Amino acid sequence: MIQPPDPAVYAEARARSDAQAKPVGALGRLEHLGAWLAACQGVCPPASLDDVRVVVFAGDHGVARHGVSAYPVEVTPAMVHGILAGGAGVSALARAAGATVSVHDLGVHGLSGVPAEVSRFRVGPARPIDTDDALTPAELRAALDAGATLADEAIDAGAQLLVAGDLGIGNTTPAAALVAASLGLSGAAVAGRGTGLDDAGVARKAAVIDAALARVGERARDPRQRLASLGSADIAAAAAFMARSAERGVPVVVDGLIASAEALLAEELAPGASAWLIAGHRSPEPGCALAQDRLGLQPILDLGMRLGEGSGAVLAVGVLKAAVAALREIAALADLA
Amino acid sequence: MIQPPDPAVYAEARARSDAQAKPVGALGRLEHLGAWLAACQGVCPPASLDDVRVVVFAGDHGVARHGVSAYPVEVTPAMVHGILAGGAGVSALARAAGATVSVHDLGVHGLSGVPAEVSRFRVGPARPIDTDDALTPAELRAALDAGATLADEAIDAGAQLLVAGDLGIGNTTPAAALVAASLGLSGAAVAGRGTGLDDAGVARKAAVIDAALARVGERARDPRQRLASLGSADIAAAAAFMARSAERGVPVVVDGLIASAEALLAEELAPGASAWLIAGHRSPEPGCALAQDRLGLQPILDLGMRLGEGSGAVLAVGVLKAAVAALREIAALADLA
Repeated sequence: MIQPPDPAVYAEARARSDAQAKPVGALGRLEHLGAWLAACQGVCPPASLDDVRVVVFAGDHGVARHGVSAYPVEVTPAMVHGILAGGAGVSALARAAGATVSVHDLGVHGLSGVPAEVSRFRVGPARPIDTDDALTPAELRAALDAGATLADEAIDAGAQLLVAGDLGIGNTTPAAALVAASLGLSGAAVAGRGTGLDDAGVARKAAVIDAALARVGERARDPRQRLASLGSADIAAAAAFMARSAERGVPVVVDGLIASAEALLAEELAPGASAWLIAGHRSPEPGCALAQDRLGLQPILDLGMRLGEGSGAVLAVGVLKAAVAALREIAALADLA
Repeated sequence: MIQPPDPAVYAEARARSDAQAKPVGALGRLEHLGAWLAACQGVCPPASLDDVRVVVFAGDHGVARHGVSAYPVEVTPAMVHGILAGGAGVSALARAAGATVSVHDLGVHGLSGVPAEVSRFRVGPARPIDTDDALTPAELRAALDAGATLADEAIDAGAQLLVAGDLGIGNTTPAAALVAASLGLSGAAVAGRGTGLDDAGVARKAAVIDAALARVGERARDPRQRLASLGSADIAAAAAFMARSAERGVPVVVDGLIASAEALLAEELAPGASAWLIAGHRSPEPGCALAQDRLGLQPILDLGMRLGEGSGAVLAVGVLKAAVAALREIAALADLA
C-alpha cells in the first residue's frame, strides 16, 4: 500500500494558510490544493512548481476500424509529428502553463521520420478488443515497464508534477471499456461521442464495448488481465506511469476519459496511488465522471474540453501553481498587524 | 449603446480554430474564450495577453459597525498596506498569473503611511446605508470620475485585460443590497456569510439590507441613485471603471459578489458594457450567482473562493492566456498533413 501524501505536512500547510492575511478558508479549494501539493512534496511551504512535464502516450487501436471514431487512423502519426513540432493543442497549452511535453510511440500505425527516442518503448498497436485481447502477456509487461521507466526518468530528472497525455484515434473505446469493466457497467453507460461521433457511431461504439466485455468475462476482474484484454499498450503504459509516480511520491494531474480510466487501473496496480492524483478537468465523456467519482477526484476545471493529449490537465497546472504561490507568498497576518 | 466585440473577428477566430489540428470544438469553452478575446482586440489571431492589470478599489462602509462582518474595520487599511507590500492574496495570485496589482483608496478609515498616489482619488467612507445615503451626489460624481480615469490611465498605458478588485470590511453588505435592488429581491435572498459570519450575523445583514431597501424605495431604480444610496465610493468607482473599459474596448474579468454587483451597474451606466465582461470565478455568496446569471456570465472557475481583492478573477487569467495561446499557436491541420 502506497503511503498518502504526508498528513503532518498537510496539517502544517493548512495552519500556515489559516495564519495568512486573509479570512480562514477564503481561498476555498485553492487552500486544499496548495496544502496537498505541500504534503506531496513533504515540505511546507512547498517549492514552486518549476518542473512540470506532460508525457504523451501514443498508440493505435484495432477497434478504430469499426467506425468508432470520427477520424481515420492516419491522424495518430500526424499528431505525433504535430507534438514533436510543437504545434499540437497540448503544445500550446503546455507553453502557456510553463510545462514541457514529450511524446512516446507505444504502438502507432505507420509512424516514420521520428527520432529513435520517440519509439524506444514501442510495443505495437492494440488488437481489436471485441474479437481479440489487445495485448499478449509479454506485450502487457513491456508496456507496464515502459510507463514505469518513463516515470522514473522524469522524476530522476527533477519533475515535480506530471501529466499523462493520451494520443490515438479510437482510444475512447478501450478507455470506456476499461471504465465499464472496472465499475460493472454496460457499453451504453460509458460510450460517448469522442471526437465527434453521431448517434449511430455512439451505438456502434457501445456494441463494440459490450462485445468486448462479453468476450473477456470474468478475466476483466484482474487489473492486468483487464488491461491486456480491453486496453492497449499506450493505456497500460500510462497507468503504470501514474502508479510509479505515486510510488515515487510525485503527484499526477489527471486529464479526461483516457487518463481517468488509467487512474482507476493505477489504483488497482498500486493501491493507494489515487491519493497522489488530482483531476485537472472533467470531459463530457460519460466514463470520465464515472471514473473520477469512483476515485473521489473532483475536477479543477469543467470547460467541455475533449481533445485528449493531456490538454485539460495541463490547463489546470496554472491553478496548481497559483495554489503553491498563495501558500508560499501571502504574508502572515501577524506580520501585517 | 456600446458596440460588442467585433462579430466578424469572432467568426474569423472560430474558423481559425476549426481549421486547427484538433477535432472541431475539442477545446470546448476555451475556443469561445479565445475567439471572444480576439473579437475584443479586433484582430485574429489575438495578441498574447502580456499586460494584465488588477486595479483594487478600497473603501470602508458605515454598515460595518452593525456586526455585518466577521472582521473589524481596522483590517481595511492593514490590507491596503498588505497589497502595497505585495503580501496580499491577490498579490501572490497576480504574480503567478503574470499580472500587476495597484490599489486605490476611495475611502478607507484611518489609512496612513501610504504614497500620495494611493489616495489621489479618495472620496471618503460610505455612510451606513440603512440610515443614510452612502454618498452625496458630489461624492458619487467624484467616485465615478475616479473609476473612469483609472480605466483610461491603465488602457493608455497598454492594458489588454483588466480586473477590478475590491477591498473593504463590510463590503458584501452594500454589494448584496445593490444586487437585491437591481433584481427586485429581499435581503434574505442575497445575504451571505461574507468572510465568515454565523447565522445570527447573516440575519443581521439581511435586516440591514431590507432597512436600506425600504429607506431608499423607488429611488433605487435609477443606477446612479442606487449607487449613491446603497453603494460606496469604491463600488461606484469600480462600476465606472468597468463601464469605461468596455467603452474603450478593453475586456474586464469579473470576480465575485462585489465585482458582479458592479458589473450589473456598469451595464446600466453604459448599456452594452457586459459584452466586454467575462466571469472569472463564482463565489459562494448568493448574490454573485444571481448577478452573473442576470448578465449571462458563466464563470470559468468555481473553487469556493471568497477573498475578494480580484483574486478569483486573476486566477482565471491563466485560462484566458491559454485560450489566446491555443488560438495563436496550434498548427493548422493543412500544415500538418
